[in-house]
Amino acid sequence: MIGILAGILTTISAMPQALKTIKTRDVSGLSFWMYLTLVTGQILWLIHGTIIVDWGLILSNTISLIINGIIFFLIIKYQRQQHK
Amino acid sequence: MIGILAGILTTISAMPQALKTIKTRDVSGLSFWMYLTLVTGQILWLIHGTIIVDWGLILSNTISLIINGIIFFLIIKYQRQQHK
Repeated sequence: MIGILAGILTTISAMPQALKTIKTRDVSGLSFWMYLTLVTGQILWLIHGTIIVDWGLILSNTISLIINGIIFFLIIKYQRQQHK
Repeated sequence: MIGILAGILTTISAMPQALKTIKTRDVSGLSFWMYLTLVTGQILWLIHGTIIVDWGLILSNTISLIINGIIFFLIIKYQRQQHK
């Protein structure tokens, strides 16, 4: 039970950050390298989960990859605008 | 092999964010609720890993909990200063 709750919390944890970044467009304090590392790691988790057919890994990493992917995209978009 | 690499990347992914936040003190764009959810989830993962004696879970969540805990502390510290 604790593992399921832990999995749900860590999977959805980036949601408030995505909503805040979409609303405020404030990416100055966000680390490009964190989200690059995180997204890369989650893609590897997704590949690993698919290879061993672990639906917990597949589901949680698909959801958090979408959310972190949105944040990563917004960081690239708005940090590039700031450097023009 | 892919799972180990995925685990390493996701465990250390918050390190660049912690370094950036320590250096810039720029927390305006960071989500308090993300780090509260993430830290809570990682504490639960740590408890779960300890119960089932899974050293991968224990090690990865101890490391990322320390890093995310630092970011969370800095968010509380600097966001509160901004609201004074």
